[in-house]
Amino acid sequence: MTLALRRINHRRHVGRKEEMQGEKTTSDRPNDPGHLLHTGARHSDEKMGQSVVDFPVAVVLPAGGCGERTGLGTPKQFCSLLRRPLISYTIDTFHRVSWIETIVVVVAKESLDLMLHIAQKFHHTKVIVVEGGSTRHRSIFKGLQAFCARAGAPPLPRPEVVIIHDAVRPFVEEELLLQLTLAAREQGASGATRPLVSTVIAATSEGYLDHSLERAKYRASEMPQGFLYDIIYQAYQRCSEFDFEFGTECLHLALRYSGTNARLLNGPPTLWKVTYKRDLAAAESIIKDTLSMSACIISGALGETAELASRLQENLAAHSMTVDVFPCVKGKNELLMKTRNFIQISETAASLCETREMVKIFEEASHALLYPVVIVWVHLSMSEEPCPTEKGAELTTIMDISTTFRKTNILLYGIQVIHSKVPELWERSVERLSQITAALVRDRNPALTGQLLQA
Amino acid sequence: MTLALRRINHRRHVGRKEEMQGEKTTSDRPNDPGHLLHTGARHSDEKMGQSVVDFPVAVVLPAGGCGERTGLGTPKQFCSLLRRPLISYTIDTFHRVSWIETIVVVVAKESLDLMLHIAQKFHHTKVIVVEGGSTRHRSIFKGLQAFCARAGAPPLPRPEVVIIHDAVRPFVEEELLLQLTLAAREQGASGATRPLVSTVIAATSEGYLDHSLERAKYRASEMPQGFLYDIIYQAYQRCSEFDFEFGTECLHLALRYSGTNARLLNGPPTLWKVTYKRDLAAAESIIKDTLSMSACIISGALGETAELASRLQENLAAHSMTVDVFPCVKGKNELLMKTRNFIQISETAASLCETREMVKIFEEASHALLYPVVIVWVHLSMSEEPCPTEKGAELTTIMDISTTFRKTNILLYGIQVIHSKVPELWERSVERLSQITAALVRDRNPALTGQLLQA
Repeated sequence: MTLALRRINHRRHVGRKEEMQGEKTTSDRPNDPGHLLHTGARHSDEKMGQSVVDFPVAVVLPAGGCGERTGLGTPKQFCSLLRRPLISYTIDTFHRVSWIETIVVVVAKESLDLMLHIAQKFHHTKVIVVEGGSTRHRSIFKGLQAFCARAGAPPLPRPEVVIIHDAVRPFVEEELLLQLTLAAREQGASGATRPLVSTVIAATSEGYLDHSLERAKYRASEMPQGFLYDIIYQAYQRCSEFDFEFGTECLHLALRYSGTNARLLNGPPTLWKVTYKRDLAAAESIIKDTLSMSACIISGALGETAELASRLQENLAAHSMTVDVFPCVKGKNELLMKTRNFIQISETAASLCETREMVKIFEEASHALLYPVVIVWVHLSMSEEPCPTEKGAELTTIMDISTTFRKTNILLYGIQVIHSKVPELWERSVERLSQITAALVRDRNPALTGQLLQA
Repeated sequence: MTLALRRINHRRHVGRKEEMQGEKTTSDRPNDPGHLLHTGARHSDEKMGQSVVDFPVAVVLPAGGCGERTGLGTPKQFCSLLRRPLISYTIDTFHRVSWIETIVVVVAKESLDLMLHIAQKFHHTKVIVVEGGSTRHRSIFKGLQAFCARAGAPPLPRPEVVIIHDAVRPFVEEELLLQLTLAAREQGASGATRPLVSTVIAATSEGYLDHSLERAKYRASEMPQGFLYDIIYQAYQRCSEFDFEFGTECLHLALRYSGTNARLLNGPPTLWKVTYKRDLAAAESIIKDTLSMSACIISGALGETAELASRLQENLAAHSMTVDVFPCVKGKNELLMKTRNFIQISETAASLCETREMVKIFEEASHALLYPVVIVWVHLSMSEEPCPTEKGAELTTIMDISTTFRKTNILLYGIQVIHSKVPELWERSVERLSQITAALVRDRNPALTGQLLQA
């Protein structure tokens, strides 16, 4: 185990000195954004963790906060991003890790039913919901106690290592969890840290500057943190009422009451905590960026549509979208499950039958359960003056499909593009088609489903 | 002056104790979001500052950062939000304050032309652009030196108080600037602070937890900060090469080299610094939320359109939008300048002439210079089966207007709604119209201008 830990740290642990002199992180997007898109088998790469973590690991997720700082009525862990509560994203990051067995979510009494509903709706089968206490530390302790005794149910199998996290930090990667877990097993406790963003200062009681701390000597303590179950349980058993009431830092309890100096690991910037309303927008933006990284064009076999597909593929690359083109996806259901963005190009409205079929396949496979699926149906009209009545019929069909499947989280948009014989007009249409398509895929706006746009 | 400061502090300064026990801020949106919308006279409420600040005040805005952490090629201060660079938003918050005379923006040599272009394009007439140094402190010092000597130009009039800020903190309110300025004049230095978000910990050199700081005793030092010009200038004259190279905290320099303990004020959460790509999305979301708080419906005088206007007004209230309804805005140009969102309801396509007129008025008044203007043209069709050819002609006109005015930042969208005699169908259309309108106003998506949607 020690060996495995060392190997991982050698490879990934950024030297402290380097990080302190100014971080060179290039993005706040998860390193492996692809995991957001993956749905087939919702389990992690077995190579990564399964063979190393051969002991039981559980997660405790305190989610009792009331979210005053977002300025919204709903506690922020229950706020919706793309029609799914924030906490479901956080849960899913643990759920897809094969070596994590149980996720104990601790919520306020009034949120018990809501949380059970969320777990069921989004197939979070590893989740156990527990009623929390009046403060963060009391809630965490209640979560830990579920492994000793539960009201009306047998206690959960006790884990060797328990990971404690925040419900409102939705972007955690398996690799960091693995590092923390192994470090916690070796050292008893481990935590993710980040460089300080602002200078930390001490004020006099009258509100004047007393001194500022040397930034390089300190770090911000973030989540997740890992503990040997017995270490953190003992710390909570021994800690004072004052700790329960006013404390927030688990690493501090482990140090003070179990004598364990946690191993500190450098976490990525994605660990940030959704605190304000603006953070919800930031989280949504990260999810949307990630979802719109890839798309599949179904080009049809005809020359004109295939040519347009290739132009579109090229233009969408400028919007950071990697696009695969297939003439047809009939019988290739596996292919369909690899992305959540589809652009179907066709010369006739008849292809809307295929669109309807595709929507049905997605519905049956729950492909849009966690993230909305976007289908952009493109009608390439070879006549300069397309028939307005035909256009009306197409709009009706598109509206009908999107109304029928409204609740399935599948968003259908139509775009008509006229193949003008005037090169400049054609160029302009292709350009506009690309921009509209990119915008529809990026925004995933449910208010615009069923519309037929003009490129 | 002392008296004025005390009065303001008494009214606004949140007690330290209260804030430390857990902040009760309800939102991260600027307290006075209306200022974002205000364009007519771009000067602050004279009552607030002008009578109190009867001494010269200038701003130094270091903007030389290279934005590595956003993961984008462009330095983040030059990244676009709604087609305007971030730094222009920051500048504008100072620009509209009547008692601020000069804004010295310090940029890297390679950004001089770009910055001059931005200042000119967005009418930032108070801005002086200065070439920076290799570090933040060197750049700030160069900014301060512009008040002593400038290459090829006379020195700027020396201010009594100078406010130092970050180019990438776009939301600052006049009231805080006033407090900081008065406190700086009295005490020599002042700074905005915020409660710590995370626990601050000290690590051993081996990467283990040494101890955690008691969160309540410390604060995060943010920007803006205010200084008597002579105090901060002297501090920079005396500070070491090490300070210039590795330091970041101006308050520290004022303390160490000018013996001034800064007065600390509690800043609002809006002071946060745009650091990562996600922060750009967060900033854009705040701007969009603010811009979509109000709208104006031009209802027409007819019974049916007026009735629809009133339904829409009601529904948009559920999207947090305050909507005024006017039958007609002819000759009421002042009225038009009070919002940037317009919904024009009409029974005939002829009203598109009025739309074109409105767009021209906006263009002449530069109403969309700083923020995009949205016009949603709603065609209420009283026939159940509207003529497809007519619809085609409308689309052509809308496309034409939006193409003609593409560069003016005025976004035009059309929505057709059929007044069905079947009550359920009509209800559904009104509901969809409200959702589409709210989405178009909120998103301000340039890719969708010129489209004619169906409610």
